[in-house]
Amino acid sequence: MQMEEAKKGRITEEMKVVAKDETLEPNKIRALIAKGHAIILKNVVRKNVHPIGIGSKLFTKINTNVGTSVDLCDIDLEIEKAKIAVKFGSDTVMDLSTAGDLDNIRKRIIDSINVPFGTVPVYQAAIEAVKKHGSIVDMTSDEIFKVIEKHLKDGVDFITVHCGVTKRIVDRLEKHPRKMGIVSRGGCFLAAWIKHNGEENPLYKDFETLLNLAKEYDVCLSLGDGLRPGCLEDASDWYQNQELLNVGKLVDIARKMNVQTIVEGPGHMPLNHIIKNVRLEKRVCKGAPYYVLGPLVTDMGCPYDHIVGAIGGTLAGLAGADYLCVVTPSEHLGIPMVEDVKEGVIASKLAAHSTDIVKLGKKMRKKDEDISSARAMLKWNEQFKNCIDPEKAEKIYKRIPTKSNACTMCGENCALLMMKEYLKGNKR
Amino acid sequence: MQMEEAKKGRITEEMKVVAKDETLEPNKIRALIAKGHAIILKNVVRKNVHPIGIGSKLFTKINTNVGTSVDLCDIDLEIEKAKIAVKFGSDTVMDLSTAGDLDNIRKRIIDSINVPFGTVPVYQAAIEAVKKHGSIVDMTSDEIFKVIEKHLKDGVDFITVHCGVTKRIVDRLEKHPRKMGIVSRGGCFLAAWIKHNGEENPLYKDFETLLNLAKEYDVCLSLGDGLRPGCLEDASDWYQNQELLNVGKLVDIARKMNVQTIVEGPGHMPLNHIIKNVRLEKRVCKGAPYYVLGPLVTDMGCPYDHIVGAIGGTLAGLAGADYLCVVTPSEHLGIPMVEDVKEGVIASKLAAHSTDIVKLGKKMRKKDEDISSARAMLKWNEQFKNCIDPEKAEKIYKRIPTKSNACTMCGENCALLMMKEYLKGNKR
Repeated sequence: MQMEEAKKGRITEEMKVVAKDETLEPNKIRALIAKGHAIILKNVVRKNVHPIGIGSKLFTKINTNVGTSVDLCDIDLEIEKAKIAVKFGSDTVMDLSTAGDLDNIRKRIIDSINVPFGTVPVYQAAIEAVKKHGSIVDMTSDEIFKVIEKHLKDGVDFITVHCGVTKRIVDRLEKHPRKMGIVSRGGCFLAAWIKHNGEENPLYKDFETLLNLAKEYDVCLSLGDGLRPGCLEDASDWYQNQELLNVGKLVDIARKMNVQTIVEGPGHMPLNHIIKNVRLEKRVCKGAPYYVLGPLVTDMGCPYDHIVGAIGGTLAGLAGADYLCVVTPSEHLGIPMVEDVKEGVIASKLAAHSTDIVKLGKKMRKKDEDISSARAMLKWNEQFKNCIDPEKAEKIYKRIPTKSNACTMCGENCALLMMKEYLKGNKR
Repeated sequence: MQMEEAKKGRITEEMKVVAKDETLEPNKIRALIAKGHAIILKNVVRKNVHPIGIGSKLFTKINTNVGTSVDLCDIDLEIEKAKIAVKFGSDTVMDLSTAGDLDNIRKRIIDSINVPFGTVPVYQAAIEAVKKHGSIVDMTSDEIFKVIEKHLKDGVDFITVHCGVTKRIVDRLEKHPRKMGIVSRGGCFLAAWIKHNGEENPLYKDFETLLNLAKEYDVCLSLGDGLRPGCLEDASDWYQNQELLNVGKLVDIARKMNVQTIVEGPGHMPLNHIIKNVRLEKRVCKGAPYYVLGPLVTDMGCPYDHIVGAIGGTLAGLAGADYLCVVTPSEHLGIPMVEDVKEGVIASKLAAHSTDIVKLGKKMRKKDEDISSARAMLKWNEQFKNCIDPEKAEKIYKRIPTKSNACTMCGENCALLMMKEYLKGNKR
C-alpha cells in the first residue's frame, strides 16, 4: 500500500524505482505520495510491470488508449498499437475495448506490455448488461462492482471511474442542455442509467465499496470527467465545474482510506481557460495529479487533433498538469490505426518533453544538448539517434542525395557548414 | 504609400480591403498603420495580389517558405508547394531559392499565386558573387542593393534584410562562441562578409539606401534575425538580444521615412522564454509586428518540428506575435516535399487559429461552432466541410465501414448517439 506506507514514513521498493527514474531522493517521492501529490501505479498482483510515478515534481507522463470497437475488433491489432505506443514513449496504456471477448482482450494486452495498464470497467459492465438484460440502463450496481473486481484481480493498475456524474448534474442537464451534452462514453452510460433508474450513480453512492476494492489491490482511481466539454462553447461551464467539485470531495475521502487518486480533465477548451482550469483542479483536489484529455484548443482540427492536443497539453503541462492523454489524428473520425497511434504518441511526448524542459530544468535537456552538439558539427547519425523518431528522420534526410555534408535544404549554402569554414578564414 | 497616407489621415484602397477581411473599421486599420503597429503587404507595382494586413488586432498570419536548393532544383515543384501552401491557408509565401535561374524562379512563383510574396535578396547577391568573384565575401555593397532593387521591381511585397547583424556582434561572436553559432543563412553570409572585409554590414551602414528603395515600391522590410538561437542553450543570449536592440533602432528610423517594418524572431527557445521575448520585441520595437520562426521549444523534435513549431507559435501568438513562419516535418533534415509543406501549413494554421480564438474572440469561432453543431447531430458532411482538411478527414472516417451513423471508434456505443436516444427515454 503505497500511500499508507508513505504516511507511516516507510519507503517501498516501488518508491525506490520511481526515485531512480526521476532522479529524486526516495524520501522526496515518499513525501509526495503521502500527501497524494503524486501516485505510483502498480497493482499488487501484477507481475510484469515497471511501476511509475505521476504527479507534482515528476516528469510529465503520457497515456495511450487502445481497444476494439464493434466496427473493428482485432486483438492483434490492439496489441500492436499498445506496443508501438510504448516504443515511442507512452508511459501507460489503457484498454478501452468495447467489442469482442473483453476479458481475453484485457489479459492479452496486459501480458504484452510492461508499463502500467488501465481500464474503464463500466464499459464492460454496460456491454454485458446489453447482452444479459437487453439494455445498458438495466445493469445493476452489483454488476458494475463485479466487473471492477474482475479487472483488479487481472492486475489492472488503474481504472477510470466516473464517480462525479451525479443525479443532480444529470437532472439539470435535461432541463438546461449544453451544446455537446455528454461526450464521455462512460459518463453517458452512467447518465443514461441515472435518468432511467431515477437513482444516484452507484460509483458515487457506493464510493466506499469502490475504495475497499481499490485498497485491496492498491489500484489508483482515475476520477473520470464524464462532463468534460465536447466543444469550446461548453468549456468551463457549470457541468464541468460541478463535477470537479464532486471529484474534489471524493479525493479527500479516498486519501483518508489511503487510496491513491488522479483526476481527469478536459476536453475541448480555449487556450485562455487552460491555466485557470489546471489551477482550479490543483486547488479543489488539493494537489491531486491531473490527467488531461487534450485539451483540444480548437474544435475544427481534425484530422490533426494530435497537434491540437499537443498545443493544449503543453499549456496544461506548463500550468501543472501531470499526465497527458494521447490524441490521435483519427480523433472524432474513427478508430485509430497503428500509424495514427504512433503520430499521437509522438505529439504528446513532444508536449510533455517541452514542458519538462521548463518544469524540471537541466536534467530533462540531455537529448536536446546532445542533438544540438551533433547538429553544430553536422554529425548526422548522432542527430538521428537523439531525435524523437530516428528511423523517419534518417529516411527524410536520405530521400534526396546531397552533394555536401549538409542537408538538401541549403546544401553548400548551409549556415553551419559556412560557420566552420568562414570563421576559420576560409572562403567558399 | 500606406504609412504616409495613414499618417495623413487618408484611407487607401488597400486599407479598405484589409478592413473588410478583418471585419474592422477602415479608420481603425489606418490608425494601426500610422503607428506601425500593423502593416499592409503590397508592392505598388504588383498586380495579382490581394493585400493583407499583419499586426496588432489583426488575425494571426502565417508564411510559407519555398525555394530551390543545389540538391533539388525544380521550379514546378516549388510552384506546387506555393500553391498547396495557399490552398491550406498560408497568408503569404516567400521564395528562398538558392539554385537555378533565380530571376526566373522568382517571377514564375510570383505569377502563380495571389498572396503577398517575399524574398531574401542577399541569397541571390551571395550566389551571384560566388559566380562572379569566386566567393560570397567578395560581393560588393552595390551588388547587394542592385539585387534588392531587381526584386522590388519584380513586385516582391516584402524582403528579409538582416540589418541587425553588425560588426560588433560578429567580432564578439569570434571571441565568445555560442553553441550553434549562426544558423541563419542570410545572417551567416553577412557575418562572413563582415569578418572578411573588416567592415560594417552594408544593410546596416547604408540603411537609408535600403529605405529609399523600399519607399519607392512601398515594400515592407522584414528585419531578419541573423542571430536567432539555433538551440535551446543559445536562447535569449547576448547575441539575440543585441540584434533585437539594433533592430529596434532601425524600426524607428524606418517609421520616420514611412517605410513599413516587421521584426523577425526566434528560433529555438524554451517555453518559458517565449512570453518574455515577445513582450521585449513589442517594447524595444515599439509595437512593430512580430514574425516568429517557430519558436521551436525542443531541439529533438525532428522529424516532427512542425508540431514543435505549432506549440511554440501558439504561445508566441498568445503573447502577441502576429505572424508565424511555417515549419515543416523536414526541418533540420532536408528540403521539404509538397506533403511536408501541407503538414507544416496545417500545423501553423492550427496554432494561429487557436490563438485567434482567444485574441479576437467570437468572430474567429464560426468554424468551431459549425463543426460542433454538426458533430452533436452526427452530420458527417458538415463536419468534414468545417474542419481543417476535409478530404483527409473524410478518408479517415470512411476507411473502415461502420454499422452505425457514429464513427468506428465507438460505433453504437457513441456517446452522442446515446445522448440522442437515452435522453429521449429510449433504451438501447
